[in-house]
Amino acid sequence: MAKKSKSKAKKNKHPTAAGKPKSRRRPAKANTGEKLEALAQAVVDQACGNTDPFVDIPLRALSNVSFNVKTRYVEMGDKSQRRNFFNYGQAKRFMQTMLVASKCKALVNEGKSASLRQVFYLAKHSIPGSKEKTFDDQADCDPILEDLEVALDSLREELRIFADSKGAMIGEITFVDTGDTIDATKLGSGGYAVPSIVEPDVLQFKKCNAKFILHVEKGTVWRRFVEDRFWEKHHCILIHGGGQPPRGVRRLLYRMHHELKLPLYCLLDNDPWGYYIYSVIKQGSINLAYESRRMAVPAAHFIGVSSFDYERFGLADNVKIDLADTDIKRAKQILAYPWFEGKRPWIREIRKMLVNGFKMEVEAFSNKYLSFVTEEYVPHKLKHPKEWLD
Amino acid sequence: MAKKSKSKAKKNKHPTAAGKPKSRRRPAKANTGEKLEALAQAVVDQACGNTDPFVDIPLRALSNVSFNVKTRYVEMGDKSQRRNFFNYGQAKRFMQTMLVASKCKALVNEGKSASLRQVFYLAKHSIPGSKEKTFDDQADCDPILEDLEVALDSLREELRIFADSKGAMIGEITFVDTGDTIDATKLGSGGYAVPSIVEPDVLQFKKCNAKFILHVEKGTVWRRFVEDRFWEKHHCILIHGGGQPPRGVRRLLYRMHHELKLPLYCLLDNDPWGYYIYSVIKQGSINLAYESRRMAVPAAHFIGVSSFDYERFGLADNVKIDLADTDIKRAKQILAYPWFEGKRPWIREIRKMLVNGFKMEVEAFSNKYLSFVTEEYVPHKLKHPKEWLD
Repeated sequence: MAKKSKSKAKKNKHPTAAGKPKSRRRPAKANTGEKLEALAQAVVDQACGNTDPFVDIPLRALSNVSFNVKTRYVEMGDKSQRRNFFNYGQAKRFMQTMLVASKCKALVNEGKSASLRQVFYLAKHSIPGSKEKTFDDQADCDPILEDLEVALDSLREELRIFADSKGAMIGEITFVDTGDTIDATKLGSGGYAVPSIVEPDVLQFKKCNAKFILHVEKGTVWRRFVEDRFWEKHHCILIHGGGQPPRGVRRLLYRMHHELKLPLYCLLDNDPWGYYIYSVIKQGSINLAYESRRMAVPAAHFIGVSSFDYERFGLADNVKIDLADTDIKRAKQILAYPWFEGKRPWIREIRKMLVNGFKMEVEAFSNKYLSFVTEEYVPHKLKHPKEWLD
Repeated sequence: MAKKSKSKAKKNKHPTAAGKPKSRRRPAKANTGEKLEALAQAVVDQACGNTDPFVDIPLRALSNVSFNVKTRYVEMGDKSQRRNFFNYGQAKRFMQTMLVASKCKALVNEGKSASLRQVFYLAKHSIPGSKEKTFDDQADCDPILEDLEVALDSLREELRIFADSKGAMIGEITFVDTGDTIDATKLGSGGYAVPSIVEPDVLQFKKCNAKFILHVEKGTVWRRFVEDRFWEKHHCILIHGGGQPPRGVRRLLYRMHHELKLPLYCLLDNDPWGYYIYSVIKQGSINLAYESRRMAVPAAHFIGVSSFDYERFGLADNVKIDLADTDIKRAKQILAYPWFEGKRPWIREIRKMLVNGFKMEVEAFSNKYLSFVTEEYVPHKLKHPKEWLD
């Protein structure tokens, strides 16, 4: 968990390629291929200049992560660590870094992408003349990729790495994916399976009549909204990420919010997990703080389910789910997150859950009637911004 | 696990609605609404006739499941149990059965669908004048729904219940989903998110140029095939179910295979989990044996990854993943499945894995080069039916 820190975070300017001045880190418009090449060139230059080659990798540790109250992102600080070639303890990781970078460069050149697992297999081999393997297992390989992301200031999607995808989308938007124009009002009950890579070179927005984005936590709730054609009545985009939204969904939310100027409303369960999902959508996760700037949507609104909705909507006892000890512990942890600091409505919200002693799911509204959530609950929430939590 | 049983399975003819003769169980073309009504009417008739109302529920237990060597399905036998209203031990479940049935009838009437969780909340309430609840938690409610499925010989999708959806599809097929025509060659990199309910009233096939269906286990492997436009080169449909395919994907495979006469090829990891996924696609699962007839595809082919492919394709040591004790145990269990009995190629396959002492993932072929699997491995397999396992 991030330590409290109010304004320690500074503008990112970690050094990247070995031996290059810090200011080169974010070359104006360098594309990912160029960045990878610059990284390699720097190492070649050092070797040719008879210096010990190295790369500087920004430190991905809790001690280097903080919440920037101004941008309202979880951000990385400016600590970094050097990885030298002629250092017994660092040589292997130095080589692994170069190896993974070279595989990413090949992907960029070929216009292909690969999963983390595929990259691991691409890069795994025995060092000629030895039994030493480049990687023993994937747990050695994944952090190297994360190192490259921060060192090059490139999202892994820009390095052509995809993750498993989850989630679907339907609504009043037309976009182009890999050359195909897709009208998301004409996707039946299934919808568009949101891919893992939704960068602008893959996916471009064409036309959008939607007035807002409604992100719901679960596929089964999303289906309720799709079946009731909520997107048509309310002119919106409906999206879910199958629980904690995967990178593709978060990045798409980010792009739609920023490029199409659409407000983002989140409908999540009233439990600590729901709060956590919201906090990741809104300000990024601590583990992958370096991505916040291109993934997080600080202006997202939490429209429900709130701990106060039990009384507001006259719900019955039937919908109460007792808080487990882990829920109570987790809620208290979340209360201590720096981004909730001073946010009185959130503090009241979480305290209310603890006082209630129960949590509620979005599905709880089915206890009134099946479409209560689409016909009354969310329309009510959209009209009452005072009930939102930000 | 199913006990070995060669020809015990008989044609399903469990009694369903209380008091009705057995032969009424599968009325020629009775739709689900009519079946639900018949169930209720039978109970009303009994009550009016001063007899103790009951329903007969086919027994969903291992003792009533067997493998039919002729149809090659996992099937239920003809044991059933009676649930009486005037029986202290059965009254609650009798009432729960009627309650869930009434909620399903309402869904059918309204033309809506609901998740298991939504049905639970729909049906949960306190019995007037008592503190007794209709259901304490969902674990009480789900089996009742399964009871209804077997009693009415209706898939839960016909009872308008959906599950969480997973999986995506792309390829040379055009279909209609809820009135929208979807051309699955024009879905970019994301594809069609396969919904949970793909019954003929929701989804109709329009046009199909595909010669076969390729089902791959994982989304990340599926993406490799999509990116390499395998479906275009080989005129096929590419589908994945995010691991163990969910009901929607299995039912869609079934429908495409039977209605469009497309062969189904499965590309799964070389591990006991891959074998298991194949066995569920092919002959159904033991837990939900009553669905096999409308979910399983006995003519499916397992094209890989086979334990013999390590040598066939000259793979390197790098791709070996040691078998864990649980893998060895699981492989031995699978060897004992009745549907592998007498299937010498399968016995050799599983024994070879045990002798190898390692398992392999589909991604392992990336160790040769990224697109080896789409450019060489699968095309080779499609040309060499002798290497398939059935």
